[in-house]
Amino acid sequence: MRIDIITVVPDILKSPFEASILKRAIEKGLVEIHLHNLRDYVTDNYKQVDDYQFGGGAGMVMMIEPIDKCISALKAERDYDEVIYMTPDGMTLKQGTANELSLKKNLIILCGHYKGVDQRVREHFVTREISVGDYVLSGGELGAAVLCDAVIRLLPGVLGNETSALTDSFQDNLLAPPIYTRPAEYKGWKVPEILTSGNFPKIEEWREEKAYERTKRLRPDLLENEDE
Amino acid sequence: MRIDIITVVPDILKSPFEASILKRAIEKGLVEIHLHNLRDYVTDNYKQVDDYQFGGGAGMVMMIEPIDKCISALKAERDYDEVIYMTPDGMTLKQGTANELSLKKNLIILCGHYKGVDQRVREHFVTREISVGDYVLSGGELGAAVLCDAVIRLLPGVLGNETSALTDSFQDNLLAPPIYTRPAEYKGWKVPEILTSGNFPKIEEWREEKAYERTKRLRPDLLENEDE
Repeated sequence: MRIDIITVVPDILKSPFEASILKRAIEKGLVEIHLHNLRDYVTDNYKQVDDYQFGGGAGMVMMIEPIDKCISALKAERDYDEVIYMTPDGMTLKQGTANELSLKKNLIILCGHYKGVDQRVREHFVTREISVGDYVLSGGELGAAVLCDAVIRLLPGVLGNETSALTDSFQDNLLAPPIYTRPAEYKGWKVPEILTSGNFPKIEEWREEKAYERTKRLRPDLLENEDE
Repeated sequence: MRIDIITVVPDILKSPFEASILKRAIEKGLVEIHLHNLRDYVTDNYKQVDDYQFGGGAGMVMMIEPIDKCISALKAERDYDEVIYMTPDGMTLKQGTANELSLKKNLIILCGHYKGVDQRVREHFVTREISVGDYVLSGGELGAAVLCDAVIRLLPGVLGNETSALTDSFQDNLLAPPIYTRPAEYKGWKVPEILTSGNFPKIEEWREEKAYERTKRLRPDLLENEDE
């Protein structure tokens, strides 16, 4: 998989790809991440990528021309499955979308910054608009990092143990059950006895019960939407 | 505001705080961010912070002792308003939570990694569990960065123009209206005439209409939940 990220602040995105699981996925050649600084696609001397809004109002808008140039240059090299725009008014990211995108080959992710991009970019270049949640960030960069992480960890070979991702929250519309590790007792707080019993079928049963209980208490909406 | 972030991979979190708006907020003294490496709170020579699950199963669990030590050391220095645990089964972050947290003074954010923390940490130390969305990340670090960004940009003085945050998506349960900047025509694609008319009351009206239309089309759920 190859992901091209277009941004005006590539610096924000450095460390998330230089540590831990994402770093190892890149080193193993399972994914390529290319950061593109939008200012490299501006012809004027001021490297201007944004301008005031038509009609007035606070906040700057990212101009269409540098974005067009950057996307066109990338598309001249290879085909892309999607041009994704990170924006708070996009479709809210869910695990299912991450699963789906993990099967793609080439993705472009365009990060909004300031107030966002000129509407004509969304109409003519973007194929999918994604929001990581119902809150506003100072730019699309952290959203892009979140999306990449959610997708890349699903690629075969990225996680040490492939069953690990399958037992995550959301993969079966249930939250994960509570988990414990050593010591069995800490300051008088004990691990549930069943977990140290060695009775694995019973443990599985207990975990399923707890996962269901927890989902019902904390996120009943997940159980209602099971066929979504 | 002061935010202490506890993590096993502090490296992931470097660049988001060293660029753009978050960097400037720190330089202006509007927020202090302190990253704490959980391995510094481990006494054994292997710097072990995680261990196998009781009851078996894939994935490692973060142990209670180093977390207890780290949180206790911080609490000995000052009072904290919240100890937040980033986890996919926490309460989903919404703009309202970001607004609320932006009024706090001292926050601890604990990042889960691997399969998450020992359940006893959640029961005895954590005051609030937050998820940035219904998807799984390889750790809580990017979630913590997202939460910090959503909160810090709301602190007075962080954004150049304070009205800018108030016209964002979600602040009034409406998505933002479409925005445009120069040139007025690009490859034959024109800006809506009203925006270049100079008739500001009409422009405001148009924007409100568009914001409402767009919300109704893309996110009707936001209109239904207006009194949440």
